[in-house]
Amino acid sequence: MERPASDEQQAFQDALVRAGILHRSSAKGVYGRGPAFVAVFEGVDRFVSDAGRGDEPEVFRFPAVFPREALVRTDYLRSFPDLVGSIHGFDGDNRAHAALLRELDEGADWSASLSPADLVLLPAACYPLYPMLEGELPESGRLFDVLGTCFRREPSDDPARMQAFHMHEFVHVGTPDSALAFRDRWLERSQQMMADLGLLAEADVANDPFFGRAGAMLAANQRERALKFELLATVSDHEQPTAIVSCNCHLDHLTVPFGISSARGGVAHSACVGFGLERIVLGLFAAHGLDTARWPHETQKRLWQ
Amino acid sequence: MERPASDEQQAFQDALVRAGILHRSSAKGVYGRGPAFVAVFEGVDRFVSDAGRGDEPEVFRFPAVFPREALVRTDYLRSFPDLVGSIHGFDGDNRAHAALLRELDEGADWSASLSPADLVLLPAACYPLYPMLEGELPESGRLFDVLGTCFRREPSDDPARMQAFHMHEFVHVGTPDSALAFRDRWLERSQQMMADLGLLAEADVANDPFFGRAGAMLAANQRERALKFELLATVSDHEQPTAIVSCNCHLDHLTVPFGISSARGGVAHSACVGFGLERIVLGLFAAHGLDTARWPHETQKRLWQ
Repeated sequence: MERPASDEQQAFQDALVRAGILHRSSAKGVYGRGPAFVAVFEGVDRFVSDAGRGDEPEVFRFPAVFPREALVRTDYLRSFPDLVGSIHGFDGDNRAHAALLRELDEGADWSASLSPADLVLLPAACYPLYPMLEGELPESGRLFDVLGTCFRREPSDDPARMQAFHMHEFVHVGTPDSALAFRDRWLERSQQMMADLGLLAEADVANDPFFGRAGAMLAANQRERALKFELLATVSDHEQPTAIVSCNCHLDHLTVPFGISSARGGVAHSACVGFGLERIVLGLFAAHGLDTARWPHETQKRLWQ
Repeated sequence: MERPASDEQQAFQDALVRAGILHRSSAKGVYGRGPAFVAVFEGVDRFVSDAGRGDEPEVFRFPAVFPREALVRTDYLRSFPDLVGSIHGFDGDNRAHAALLRELDEGADWSASLSPADLVLLPAACYPLYPMLEGELPESGRLFDVLGTCFRREPSDDPARMQAFHMHEFVHVGTPDSALAFRDRWLERSQQMMADLGLLAEADVANDPFFGRAGAMLAANQRERALKFELLATVSDHEQPTAIVSCNCHLDHLTVPFGISSARGGVAHSACVGFGLERIVLGLFAAHGLDTARWPHETQKRLWQ
């Protein structure tokens, strides 16, 4: 579902494009990232890695695609059907290919020649961890550093709302207590990190964008239980701050579907802190200006030294 | 189309999984990458960046998704329909969502509720460059460093054939002569680079995997004109070497569809060298063993110093 951009969001997009920081494509919310964006992105990514390294996480990376059957085992299609990206492919022979090419030449809808693959686009960086963790966790749980290419289908000209973006997450899977403690520790730590970069970010209780009528209830429940906090900063609109970091308790939503238990067969919970890398990068351009050479010395030092 | 793995390829996959270097998912050719893989991957990626830095390329990064209309403007669907990943999404209301959930609960095919989005998966790292370059190039053309998350639908248990993988490319867009010279310079340079890592790689004329009956002719033509060279190394099977680098002249296949001309309106050609990062990483594990601490000192130095 397209998300209309405010005038200020549109103006920020225009300014980023004029400066060669982002390059529009013909699809909304899908950008090329120019040299200045890439330099800041790499700095932020390293800054995030460094912040968690002392805890000795297991470093995992996953591709942009995720098994369809694993997504079906989660609540995702129930909660966020509008955000999913389903992957379809061509399994035909020469004759079917000729038909596809005729459809193409006639400007017709050639997607009817395709059939669903066993893959969807990865919706969140930590999802591929859970199928790996089936069984009993060690006594102190496990801790991961994951960076993922995520997809959410919400085309927009607000540059802070990309369809394809990167989440750098630290994820703990352990007991209900250890998961909550992990979430709260990172809520504090991530606020300090954003301050170190010179970003004003305020923490607030939040909810995921649950779909439809039933979703409103899920959102209210999530807020009431204070399961999700976001750090909000001005990125593309002073009146609509953007979540640049989120700190989440998933309870057993991701452990039960994949048969994960804590040590000695107890209930396992998971929690994560997710750094929205593109949003932090854009927040830095919004806060410090479009010319990185003129950014505060302290910010440059944190990113590139 | 599934590509059956040889016994040796299957055995190499098993060994990588036992060592925690790769983690299988429920989809073939889609892996989690463990700490050792990630460390080597980051080293190879940096090694590739460094090799091209002296030429001062413009550094661009693109997301894993690509506008459907841009793919349609190229030969891709004509040449490689079987490799494409088309993205479909859910645009329905509450009622359609209820129907989707019923289909899910009944284990039925819920993909009928989806419709094609204006996006496909990115097939090659350099594709998003060309729509950006419409118009006339500067006198000496342009040079780019791009790294992309690519997708090709060829499920396999051969670990050297992943469905989702990374290409790190240098791309030159200029005149027919400058494109050919660029390709030949990198053919030499990339062989030296692989030798520096301790990888035995042989250059050979190659062709892209063109689809179907008509494809056989296109492949023969490409070989006859020596447009594509690959560096082949033993990765997962001694009898079936794997292309770890490719050096390509695209002629005007990607410039004409996007209205790119060289200076003063002349014909523009493009050329690229693509480093298959996952394949190089796996080639290093194959050549030097699964324990990176025991790799040759020279290789470790190139990757991590």
